[in-house]
This record gives sequence, structure tokens and C-alpha cells, in this order.
Amino acid sequence: MSVNPIVFNNTVLRDGHQSLAATRMRTEQMLPVVELLDGVGFGALETWGGATIDSCLRFLGENPFDRLDALKRLSPKTPHMMLLRGQNIVQYTSFPDDVVSAFVKCSAEHGMDIFRIFDALNDIRNLKTAFRAVKEAGKHAQGVICYTTSPVHTVETFIKLGEELEAIGSDSVCIKDMAGLISPSMSYELVKSLKQRLKVPVVLHTHSTAGMGAASYYAAIEAGVDEVDTSIAPFANGTGQPDTLLMQKMLEQSPRKPSYDVEKLHQLREHFDGVYEELSDFTSPRNERVDSDILIYQVPGGMLSNFRNQLKEQGMADRLEEVMREIPYVREQLGWIPLVTPTSQIVGTQAMLNVKFGRWKMLSQPAMDILLGKYGRTPGRVDAERRKQAERQANQEAIECRPADVLEPRLPALKAELAARQFPDADEVAVLHAMFPQELKKILTRASAPVTPTVTPGKENPAKRSAAVSGTVSRYRLMINGTPYGVSVETLD
Amino acid sequence: MSVNPIVFNNTVLRDGHQSLAATRMRTEQMLPVVELLDGVGFGALETWGGATIDSCLRFLGENPFDRLDALKRLSPKTPHMMLLRGQNIVQYTSFPDDVVSAFVKCSAEHGMDIFRIFDALNDIRNLKTAFRAVKEAGKHAQGVICYTTSPVHTVETFIKLGEELEAIGSDSVCIKDMAGLISPSMSYELVKSLKQRLKVPVVLHTHSTAGMGAASYYAAIEAGVDEVDTSIAPFANGTGQPDTLLMQKMLEQSPRKPSYDVEKLHQLREHFDGVYEELSDFTSPRNERVDSDILIYQVPGGMLSNFRNQLKEQGMADRLEEVMREIPYVREQLGWIPLVTPTSQIVGTQAMLNVKFGRWKMLSQPAMDILLGKYGRTPGRVDAERRKQAERQANQEAIECRPADVLEPRLPALKAELAARQFPDADEVAVLHAMFPQELKKILTRASAPVTPTVTPGKENPAKRSAAVSGTVSRYRLMINGTPYGVSVETLD
Repeated sequence: MSVNPIVFNNTVLRDGHQSLAATRMRTEQMLPVVELLDGVGFGALETWGGATIDSCLRFLGENPFDRLDALKRLSPKTPHMMLLRGQNIVQYTSFPDDVVSAFVKCSAEHGMDIFRIFDALNDIRNLKTAFRAVKEAGKHAQGVICYTTSPVHTVETFIKLGEELEAIGSDSVCIKDMAGLISPSMSYELVKSLKQRLKVPVVLHTHSTAGMGAASYYAAIEAGVDEVDTSIAPFANGTGQPDTLLMQKMLEQSPRKPSYDVEKLHQLREHFDGVYEELSDFTSPRNERVDSDILIYQVPGGMLSNFRNQLKEQGMADRLEEVMREIPYVREQLGWIPLVTPTSQIVGTQAMLNVKFGRWKMLSQPAMDILLGKYGRTPGRVDAERRKQAERQANQEAIECRPADVLEPRLPALKAELAARQFPDADEVAVLHAMFPQELKKILTRASAPVTPTVTPGKENPAKRSAAVSGTVSRYRLMINGTPYGVSVETLD
Repeated sequence: MSVNPIVFNNTVLRDGHQSLAATRMRTEQMLPVVELLDGVGFGALETWGGATIDSCLRFLGENPFDRLDALKRLSPKTPHMMLLRGQNIVQYTSFPDDVVSAFVKCSAEHGMDIFRIFDALNDIRNLKTAFRAVKEAGKHAQGVICYTTSPVHTVETFIKLGEELEAIGSDSVCIKDMAGLISPSMSYELVKSLKQRLKVPVVLHTHSTAGMGAASYYAAIEAGVDEVDTSIAPFANGTGQPDTLLMQKMLEQSPRKPSYDVEKLHQLREHFDGVYEELSDFTSPRNERVDSDILIYQVPGGMLSNFRNQLKEQGMADRLEEVMREIPYVREQLGWIPLVTPTSQIVGTQAMLNVKFGRWKMLSQPAMDILLGKYGRTPGRVDAERRKQAERQANQEAIECRPADVLEPRLPALKAELAARQFPDADEVAVLHAMFPQELKKILTRASAPVTPTVTPGKENPAKRSAAVSGTVSRYRLMINGTPYGVSVETLD
């Protein structure tokens, strides 16, 4: 057993609120404790990437690079980490190599230190451009093994992937269990094998969705994992990462016990308690508890709740079980793609279409793209018949090459588009324009408007809000077991 | 590592709803799935004891022995288990030996198989009478190690206690971690040592309150524990035991993987989903999630929320931190008693009094009783000065003997009291009369009333209810604290 203390990476500024509050935490809600976070001594602070860039532009009216600058300024000591979706950058489809490279270069220039790079299909070819750019920028490239369960995902295939990631230059390797599916025994086995076979540090990232997160970290730590990701409650546990204080407490008698300052962790929790309340429109008690659906249906919780709504809209609310049973079949035919954004939606929608119209009578566009190889190489082979159907319907051949190989460079065109609209055409703007053209336009237009009032949502006084509706009093006479009671009911909120 | 599959005991009918729904599950909410529960093959079904007897009498208007009869009739295959508070039976103070013995004898006659017997102070003398009675009835006596943390609670003291429990005839030994404080490493170490030193099976019971439950079970299973307690979601996780389905899923790749029927577990969950909704007046999202308070303040979550209310009532809402800091000091002076009902309240109240009036200016009655030895031998020595103060104020000497040694037999008197009021005076009634005289009286009086309509709460059709609204008078059946009321409401304006 290793005796080096376990290292915690903190995710509260990215995955914590992405998982528990729909990625709605604003920069100004982070700033008061960024110095404090920097002083705890975490292995890394995950501050950017994933859905945060989308959310900054779409919902928060923030420039994501400004956020990164602000956070970096207040936390210069701890390495910053971001989640990068390989060739998809922080979107859902492939981008040309020049856009990917420019994005990485800009991020590095703005202070990003560790790039955690994954591909939903574990197609390593989709990681290579980002890796090269990270290396050129002199930063840390962390290769990712996306964990999922299927007949073609075995300990051996994961280990082999880990070795490949090391071979292409991973400075560390992360097992990313985005659905919270990894069991303690599997964590132990995977980590043990990777530690034997790799020279670089091994990291485990999981979610407590199914209630296994803390146990799986425990087993991984026993097996010698170097780092695990933790968050700060209440942006922790449930659909998020295990809480830092919880994990430290859990390891009190462990030889690998870490020693982060409990007082500081306590202060952080107090701050984030307040932020959590401010974000109450986006939080849900459902996200905080153990999700049994994932144990019964073997699909991520978020997927199931979306799904129930979708089925209702389609007038198929009573066919949930049937659609659920269709999912493994669809997954198999699509080459056992993992159930994670965006592939969970692709599989789910296709399963629904199969049940509603008969198997493969309707083929959704994204399922067709999977079959045509446009997302990359699937973990298992896609069904030959299905591929033929897709080729026929799309009237094009499936590709075997790296998806981005068929994409032309776009950076010059992106810059020209921006310039034509008299927007700034710096690389930072161009890469955002590539991924979020509509949202970026809104931001850029607003920024040039004469007055941009500072918006501080979530700071309304709840007392004020309730004052508007109080004062409605109803009076009743109640007979309870034959006894009369005069009762008045005042609606308070 | 052991290779025998781990055995799950199911707690949904006792600790599950005691922890997550204030013990309010009614017998009729259990009955539809008792046969199903019996068919799963659990090691035991915890169906009785703890707070259920109190709740039956106080809130549900049920005769607890009738409940046991009904449950036993429908689940004859699986052993039934109950939680017994040693000399306190299912109350908070010591009862005479004859009452304890009669209670055990009646419970055995009504079908109880396994008696899990604990004393909050781990004073083994408080277990002996119950043990003897269980043996006389030919049933299984499970000795309990109450787990807590303090300078005088070490692995060695717990192991020694385990050996003593085996020596007095425990058929199995249970580590009972009622506050959810045990860490995976501690679970591993304790179980490993107990398995080496004891011949009888070892059981671990914990709660997921602090988020460590599943991880601690995992570690205990690795260390060779024979049985763990699990429940059925939504009466599981959070402040309750880990969910059965979750634990089975978690152990999928373990050599000790159990193989309970997933379809049956799924059906059970669907039933209890409905019951959980019916009991929504007594459930709280707070109970379902990981409780960080316990990690920060080192006190059980339930204690802290009670406490905040108590402090508010005393106008001391701003002095929480101060009172919290007083707790370890009070615990030390009171001989490091564990923080569990009723000792958590005793310590908490005394800490509050100390902060409000100055240390030991006011001594609460229960704290005085602890100091006078009336609860038994404390884990550490109580402070000598404090003991003298208690003796002076109470004007009596502290006792060193087993508390029940100073209690006269009471069964004949209890029966005489019942007979005088023309109530039945069977042992079953006498033992309940000893513990819950007021509540029993209500039940006995009501039962002799001419008509007791059968109430089926939670099964009313909401549609029908609104149909009953006619004119300005509406009639309802209300469930208030588990008691049904016929209500008519007349709108006046």
C-alpha cells in the first residue's frame, strides 16, 4: 500500500456547480473565496471548461476568458485545471484542428495549467491535436479514460487505453467516471493495474450519483491512486463529487490521510452554502440524494429525468420500461457507445424512435452520424446492416479516418466573419465564435451598447419577494371530531 | 479475504422509517410486501423494537404486539430481529429485571427470533438480564458494541468489549454505529480484529448520515464481516442504512457479491416509494442527503437540528459555536458518554446550560443521574468534583452497582394497577404499561369503545376527496401525526 498522502483536486468551481446547479455559478459568486481555495493546497483547482464556457455565454452574460483571468489572478499558487472534450473542445461535434489548437493556446495564455482531455468514444485519435497544442504551450496534458460498462469495456481494454494515453504523452492519466458507475472493486482493480503498468500519476474522477463515489475513492486510494477529485458541499455529493471534508474525515485512520486545513474547508462550505441558496432556482433536492434509478435502469439519472419528460411530450409516458429495455440493444448496434453527453441523448432518442415506429424505421441524424463514423471509432463495431442503412439514407460513405481529417481549417474564415461585423477578431473571440456563434454575438453586441448594467441575480432579498404576496388571510370554521374550531390561514410565502 | 457471500439484514420495517420518517410507518403500509420481503432471502428482517413500539402507541394507535403477530404471520421464513435497549427495554431509563425478562419472554412468544441488545454506555451489566431471558426463550442473543469516538474509545476497548459479549453468551456480535461515524479504515480494522478474536458471526450496522456508510460496509466486507444491515430506498441512505440495491450493485465485482433477486428489490422499492409519499409529513429532503454538520461539529445531525431550535427558544441562536465547543468538555466530565439518544440530549443540554449560566452553575437532572451512576458505568471516569457536586445536590451517594440492582420487582404491581382499572393484565400489557402508561391507556380505552372504524390512510383517492366538496361545507379525513380525524370545513368568507 502506498504511504504518500492522497491528493485532492477541487472541482467546486466547475463540476461542482455543473452537476448540482446547472453550471449557473457566476464569477462574482466565486471571487470572495478564490484566495482561500488557493491557500488550501489542493493538487489542482478545476476552474474552467466542461459546460462552464457554454453557460457563461448562454446564461450568465460573461466572457469566459475574463472569468479565467479573474480566477487566475486570485489563485496563482494552485495549478488550474480544465475539462476539454478533445476535438469537440467544449461543444458536441468535431472542430477543425486549427480551431482546437487556437483554443488550447489561448487557454494556456490565460493561465490554464492542466488540460484534462477526453473523447466520449475513447477514440484516442480525437485527443491528439489537443495534446500537441498543450505540449507546444508547455502545459500539462492529462489523458482520460472514459469509464463505462458494456461487454466490450473490460479492465483489459481500459488498461490498454491507459498505456496508449501514456504513449501519446499524457503527463497523467485520469479515469473519468462521469455517470458514477464505477464500483469500489472495479476502482481498486483498475487503479492497481494502471499503477503497475504506467509511470505517470493516476487520477480518479467520479460522481456520488449512485451512492458509490466515496467508497470507490476509498478503494482507489487503497490501490494507490495518486489523486482524486473532490468538491465543497453543498456543491458536492449526490450528482457531484464527494465532499472534501467528508473524504478527509473518511480517511482519518488511513495511512494516506491528507491534512487539508479543516477550518479553511469549513469557511469554504459556509460561503458555498450561501451561493447554493442564491442558486436555488437551479438546484434540486433530487440531485443531492442517492439515485436509485441508475441502479435499476443502468442509465445516468439526468438522462432518465430528461427522458421521462421527452416520453410525456411524445404521449409515451406509459412506455418507459419498454424504451429502457430497448437501450442496451441500441447501444450494441451503435458499437456500445457510452451513455454520457451527448451519446446518452443519441441512444435514448433512438430507443424511443424504435419503440414508437418500429426498430430503425426512423433513424435520427446523430445516430446516423455515429454509424457514419463522424464521432470517431466506436468502442465496439457498429452493426453492418445499420451502417449500410445510414450510408443509404445519407447518401454517403461511412468514414474510418479521424473525423477532423475531413474538416478544412476554419480559423481564417472565423476571423473574417468577425471582422466583417466589426467585432474583435482575436483568437479568443474566434474560438468562441466557432462554438457559440449566436451566444457570442449577444455578448459582443451588449458589450458595445452604451450602458451594460451590472446584473447580480440571486441577490434579491427573499423577504422582499414574500412581502409582495403576504396578507392573504382566509378564515374558516372547522369541525374536528365534532368540535368546532375557528381557524384563520395566512399565506406567508 | 473471505469468499462467502455477504449477508444483508433488512431494516426497512424498523430503522429505515425510524431514521427517515420519524418511525411513522403503519402496519398496513407494511403488509402488502411482507411476503415479498420474506422471499428475498435476507439474513434477518428487523421488524420491531427501537422506537417502533413507542410510535405504535403514541402516534399510530396500534398495539405493537399485534403488529409483530401480523408481520410474523406473513414472513415466517426469515428470522425476525428487534433492537432492544438492554435494561431500558425500549425506553430511556432502567427497568426492574422482572419487567425486562417478561418483555423478552412475550416478544419471543410473539415470534421474535434475534434480539439485538445494546446499552448506550456499553455497560455490559445492563445487558445481562435481557441475555438471560433470551437464552431461556431459546432465541438468538446478539451482543452490541456501540461505536463512538473519544479518547477512551479505542480499537482495543472495542475488541475487549466484543470478547466480553462473546463470554456472556452472544450468538453474534454487532458493531452498532448509530451516528454514522465509523470510517472505512476503522471498520476494516475493527472487523478484522473481531473476526480473529471471536468465534461468533460479526455484524456491522451503520447509517449513511455523514456519507461514509457504503464505504464502511465495503471495507468491512473486505475485512470479512459476516452480515451488514441494509434498507430499501427511499427509506435508505442519508440518515438511514445504505440501500440494498446500491450495496448489491457496489459489490458486483467483489468475490463476496450477494445475489438477491433484483426484480424483487425493484418491486419493494416501488412499494416503498408510495409509502414514502404517504408519509411526506414526516420525511425531509435534509435526511436524504449527506450531512456535513456531523463532519464539522462531530455531533449527529439530528442532534444539531434539535439543538438549533433549542438555542433559538433560549434566545441563544448566536451562541451555537460556543455551545459546540463546550460539548467535548462536558462529555469528558461525564465520562466520555457517547452522543446517542438519550445521552446526546443530556450532553447537549448541559453544554447549553454551562454556556448560559457558567460552567456547572446549573446541573440538569439527567446529567446528575449520569454522575450518580444511575445509567451505569460510563466509558471513562466521570470527574470527581462533578460527582461530589451531584451527590451534594441530590443528597444521595453515587452508586457503583448495576443500576437495576437498586430497583424492586414491579411486574406484580403493574398487573394490579391494570386489573384495578379493569384492563387486561397479561404480561404483554404489563410491560407496555411499565414503559408507556399514558399512551397505553389511550389505546386500551379506545379499543373498548363501541365502534373503531378501520382507517386506511394514504389510500384515499384525492379525486374522490374533492368530489365530496358540496356547497360551502367540505368534509375531509385528515391524518394528523398519524392519527385520523374526521373533519368538516365550512367556508365563512
